[in-house]
Amino acid sequence: LDYQHVQVPFEITLWIMLASLAKIGFHLYNKLPSVVPESCLLIFVGLIMGGIIYGLNDRSPPVMDSDIFFLYLLPPIVLDAGYFMPSRPFFENIGTILLYAVVGTIWNVFGIGFSLYGICQVKAFRLQDVSLLHNLLFGSLIAAVDPVAVLAVFEEIHVNEKLHILVFGESLLNDAVTVVLYKLFRSFCEMPTIKSVDVFAGVGKFFVVGLGGVLVGLSFGFTAAFTTRFTKDIRVIEPLFVFLYSYLSYLTAEMFHLSGIVAIIACAMGMKRYVEANISLKSHTTVKYFMKMWSSVSDTLIFIFLGVSTIGENHEWNWPYICFTVIFCLVWRALGVLVLTFFVNRFHVNTITSKDQFIIAYGGLRGAICFSLVFLLPDFHRKKLFIAATTVVILFTVFVQGMTIRPLVDLLAVKRKRESAPTVGEQIHIRFLDHLLAGIEDISGHWGQYYWKDKLEYFNSKYLQKILLREYDQPKSSIVLLYEKLERKHAIELAQAGQLGHGPAHPSFLCSAFFCSTSDRTVITDQKLEDTPNPDVLDNMQEILARNLYRIRRTGPAYNRHTLPGDSEPTEQAKEILILRHKNL
Amino acid sequence: LDYQHVQVPFEITLWIMLASLAKIGFHLYNKLPSVVPESCLLIFVGLIMGGIIYGLNDRSPPVMDSDIFFLYLLPPIVLDAGYFMPSRPFFENIGTILLYAVVGTIWNVFGIGFSLYGICQVKAFRLQDVSLLHNLLFGSLIAAVDPVAVLAVFEEIHVNEKLHILVFGESLLNDAVTVVLYKLFRSFCEMPTIKSVDVFAGVGKFFVVGLGGVLVGLSFGFTAAFTTRFTKDIRVIEPLFVFLYSYLSYLTAEMFHLSGIVAIIACAMGMKRYVEANISLKSHTTVKYFMKMWSSVSDTLIFIFLGVSTIGENHEWNWPYICFTVIFCLVWRALGVLVLTFFVNRFHVNTITSKDQFIIAYGGLRGAICFSLVFLLPDFHRKKLFIAATTVVILFTVFVQGMTIRPLVDLLAVKRKRESAPTVGEQIHIRFLDHLLAGIEDISGHWGQYYWKDKLEYFNSKYLQKILLREYDQPKSSIVLLYEKLERKHAIELAQAGQLGHGPAHPSFLCSAFFCSTSDRTVITDQKLEDTPNPDVLDNMQEILARNLYRIRRTGPAYNRHTLPGDSEPTEQAKEILILRHKNL
Repeated sequence: LDYQHVQVPFEITLWIMLASLAKIGFHLYNKLPSVVPESCLLIFVGLIMGGIIYGLNDRSPPVMDSDIFFLYLLPPIVLDAGYFMPSRPFFENIGTILLYAVVGTIWNVFGIGFSLYGICQVKAFRLQDVSLLHNLLFGSLIAAVDPVAVLAVFEEIHVNEKLHILVFGESLLNDAVTVVLYKLFRSFCEMPTIKSVDVFAGVGKFFVVGLGGVLVGLSFGFTAAFTTRFTKDIRVIEPLFVFLYSYLSYLTAEMFHLSGIVAIIACAMGMKRYVEANISLKSHTTVKYFMKMWSSVSDTLIFIFLGVSTIGENHEWNWPYICFTVIFCLVWRALGVLVLTFFVNRFHVNTITSKDQFIIAYGGLRGAICFSLVFLLPDFHRKKLFIAATTVVILFTVFVQGMTIRPLVDLLAVKRKRESAPTVGEQIHIRFLDHLLAGIEDISGHWGQYYWKDKLEYFNSKYLQKILLREYDQPKSSIVLLYEKLERKHAIELAQAGQLGHGPAHPSFLCSAFFCSTSDRTVITDQKLEDTPNPDVLDNMQEILARNLYRIRRTGPAYNRHTLPGDSEPTEQAKEILILRHKNL
Repeated sequence: LDYQHVQVPFEITLWIMLASLAKIGFHLYNKLPSVVPESCLLIFVGLIMGGIIYGLNDRSPPVMDSDIFFLYLLPPIVLDAGYFMPSRPFFENIGTILLYAVVGTIWNVFGIGFSLYGICQVKAFRLQDVSLLHNLLFGSLIAAVDPVAVLAVFEEIHVNEKLHILVFGESLLNDAVTVVLYKLFRSFCEMPTIKSVDVFAGVGKFFVVGLGGVLVGLSFGFTAAFTTRFTKDIRVIEPLFVFLYSYLSYLTAEMFHLSGIVAIIACAMGMKRYVEANISLKSHTTVKYFMKMWSSVSDTLIFIFLGVSTIGENHEWNWPYICFTVIFCLVWRALGVLVLTFFVNRFHVNTITSKDQFIIAYGGLRGAICFSLVFLLPDFHRKKLFIAATTVVILFTVFVQGMTIRPLVDLLAVKRKRESAPTVGEQIHIRFLDHLLAGIEDISGHWGQYYWKDKLEYFNSKYLQKILLREYDQPKSSIVLLYEKLERKHAIELAQAGQLGHGPAHPSFLCSAFFCSTSDRTVITDQKLEDTPNPDVLDNMQEILARNLYRIRRTGPAYNRHTLPGDSEPTEQAKEILILRHKNL
C-alpha cells in the first residue's frame, strides 16, 4: 500500500465525490430541497463531518484554506455568474447596482465598524481592548454581501429579474470595495501613524481596483474571442480557451491587487458574444454545461467546508459582541437600502417598491468570502473573537434568512420571474423601442442609456466584430439567430417526441401511425431480441425489416420524416437534396 | 505585484495555454499536419522552449516530474482511450493483443536486456560496469510501446480497425507487464542476493497486477453506473461522476501497486454502456467533448515537456550503447512480431498479413512513459547514460518512425479504415450472425468467443441492467437506439440545412421558397439593421414581420416546419400537440 504517493489527488477527488453524492442525496427526497435551501443542507453535512473528524482525532478539523478558496473554488462560481449574467437588466440597472455596491458597502462598513466600537466602550462587556481600527477592519470584511450565498438562495426562489440582478449585481461588484477597504484597514492596523495622504490614496484606489479589474477582464475577454477565430480546424480545444482566459484574467487581477471578481465578470461578459459566434454548437454546449457543473461543485465544496471549519477550537465567545454584530449587520443594511433607494426612486420611472426593498435588505447574505478574509487576518489577540462573530453571522444569514426568505417572498407576493421566455414579437418590439429611444435621445441631445448602447453597438459592428469574429461578413441579426435556435430546438423536440412519446418499440410517431400493423410485431421482436436467437422471432424480424428497411436506408440524402414513399413530392425532395449537397460543399 | 501568491495556478494555466496555442498554430497551415505528425511538432516546440530557458538561465530547464506525469497527465489520455475503445474489434482480437502485450513485451525486455549486456562486455566500449540486472532494468523500461505516442501517430494515418487495435491494445495492456518487470528488477538491483523464490513471486505478480487492475476498474465502473441511476433531478453534475470514478479507479490501482492503466480502461469500458443510457444527451456530449479536450491537452503538454526535458545536462553520451539500444529495440520488436504472428496465424482464419506485421513492428513507438520511468530510477553512476539512451530512442521512434509511417502505409497500400459507418442492413446481419454462431457453438459444445459473448449478454440483461440502469424495464434494442440516433441527427441536419444552405438572411428553406418575394427584402433589412434605425427599413421590416410573425409565433406546441398555414392537416396537428403534451407530462 502506497498511500503517500497518491494522497493529494486522492483526497481532492474524495472530497468532490462526497460533495456530489451529498447533492444527489438531497434530491432523492423531493420535498427537502423545496423547504430548506441546499446551502443550509450542505453546511449541515459539513458540521456533521467536522464533528466526526473532531470526535475521532480529538483536535480541530482543518479549516478551509483561504488560498484554496480564492484561487480554486471562487473563480468557477464567479465565471459561471458572469457568463450567464442577463446583460440587459444588468446594464439597465447598472447605476443602482453600483450605488448599492459602492456607497451601500461603504455605508455598511463604517456603520457596523463605528457602532461596534461604541459597544466596545461599554465597560461591562470587557471589550475595551478592541480598537476602532480593528472594528473597522472587521466591518470591512463582514459588511459585504456574498455572491455565492446570494446565488445559492436566489436561484431557488425565482424573484423578478430586476430584484434578482440588484441583489446579485451588488454582491458581485462590491468585491472591489471590500478589497480596497480590507487592505486599507489592514495596512492601517500595522502602521504606527496614519497620515491624511494615506486616506486619500485609499479613496483613489477604489477607482484603480475597480476599473483596473474591468480593463484586465475586457482585454483577456477580447483576446479569448480573437483566439477562437482560429480554432476552426481543431474544435476539440475550443471550450478550453473560455476557461483558460477567464482564469488568467482572475489571476492577473489578483496578482496586481485588483478585483479578481470584477475582472472575471468583465472577461466573461466581454467574450461571451463573440466566442458563442465563433465556436461550434457542441463546444458551446460543453462550455455551458461544464461551467455549470464546475460552479455547482465549487459551491457545494465551499458550503461543506464552511460547515467543517465551524467545528473546533478557533472561537472566542463573547455574547454582546456577537449578538450586536448580527443586529448591526441587519440594521445598517436595512437603513442603507432605505436611504439609497429613496434617492434611486427620485430619478427613475420604474421605482423599487417597498416589498422589493425589504427583500433586497433581507437578501444580504454573508458567506465564504467573509470567512476566508477573517482567517487571512494577521494574528492578534482578538482574532478568535472575530472568527466566532463572522461564523455566527454567516450561519445566521444562511440558515435563518435563507430559510425564511422563500415564505416571505410568498407572503408578500413579491413579483416573480415570468415563466415563459419573451415571444419573438416582444423581442422585436423591444428592439424597435431601443432604436427609437436611441433616436430620440440623439435628437434631444441627451446622452442617456440608449444613446450609449447605440454607439457601442455601432462600434461593435464597425470594428470589434471584424476583428473578433471569424465570419464577420455575415453579421447575423439577433432575430435570425433566435429563429435558428427555435428551429433547431423544435427539430430536436420533434425527433424526440416521435420516440419518447410512444415507448421504446415505436421508432417514430409517424412510423407507428403508418405502419400500425407491423409495429405491434416490432414490440415483440425488440423485447425478445435480448434473450435468445429464436428462429421464429428472427424470421419475424427479417420480414418487418424487409418492409421497413427501404425507408431507413434512404436516410442518406433523401430521407425525410415527413415525406413517406407514397406521398413525397418529387420537386420538394429534389430541392432538399440540393440543399443538403449545397451545405456539404 | 504579488506573483508568489498566484504562481502555481498561473504557471499551470500558462503552460496549458502555450500548449493550446501551439496546437492552433500548427493547424493554421493546413499542409504541415498532413506531413509531420503533431507529436513531432510539439516536441520541437518543447526543444525550442527548453533551449530558450537554458540560454536565459544558463542551467538545465526543469524536467517533467514523473509524479505529475503519472498522476495528472496520463490518466485523461488513458480514460479517453478506454472510453472510446471500439469494443468489438478489441474483444475479437483480445487473445492476439494479450499475446503481443505479455509475451511480446517479456521477449523484448529480455532480448534487449541480454543483448545490451553483451555489448557491455566489449572492452573497447568502456561499459563493463553496467551489470546484467541494470541492463534488464533498462530493458524493462525501454521495451514497452507507449500508448500516448502510438495514439498520436495512428490517429492520423487511419489504418484498418484490426491493425489499429492490435498496436494500440498492446500499448495499453503491456502496462501491467512493464509495472511488474520494472519494479521486480528495481528491487533486485537493491537486494544483495536473489533467491529463486523471488523470481517465482515475480511471475505470480503478473496475474495479480493485471487481473487486480481489471477488478478495481470494473468495480469502480459499476459503482459509477449505479450512481448515475440517481442523478435524474440533478443533471448538471452527471458528467462529473464519469471523471471522478475513473480517476479514483486509477489512483486506487496505483495505491495498491496494480496497473492503473488497466484499471482505468476496465472502468471506462465497464461503465460506458450503462452511463450512456442513464445520463442525458447533453451530459453525454459534455462527457465526450471534455474527455477529448482533456486528453488532447494532456497529450500536448506531455510532448512539449518531453522536448523541454531533453535539453540540459542530464545526459551521458556513449555512442555504442545508445546506437545499439536503438538497433536492438527495432530488431527485437521485429523478431517478436514475426514469431508471435506465426503462432497467431496458425489458429486464425483472418490472418495478419505480412504488410500488417511490418506496420505492427514499425509502429512500436516509445514515449513519455519510458521517459518518466527512467527518471524514477534510483540514483546510480550510469543513470545519465540510461536517460540519454531513452531520450534518443524516444526521439528516434517519434521523429523517424512517426514521420515515415504514413508514406510507408501509402507505399505498401495497407488496408485502410473504411470511411463510411456500417449501414443498418450490415449491422443487422452482423447481429444475426452473432446469434447464429453462438447457437452453433452451443450445439457443438465449443466454448468459443460467441458462446461467451452470448452468456455475458444474458447475464447483462438478466442482472446487471436491472441494477445499473434507471429504466431497466425498457431495454432498448440496439437497432432502435441506432434509429433514434439517426432520426435525431437527421432532424438537426434538416434544421441546419434550412438555415445554412441559403446564407444568413433566409430564416429557413421553406420560408424562402414560399415567401420568395419578401425574403429579398429581408436580406436588406437584416444587413442594415445593425447600422441605423432608418424609418424606411423599419417600415419594411414591420411589413415583412406582420406577414411572417403568425407562423413564427405559433412555435409553441403546434408549429411545424412542414405544415404551412395553408396545407396543415388538422388531424396531424392535433396528434402532434397530443404527443408533445404527452411528453411534457
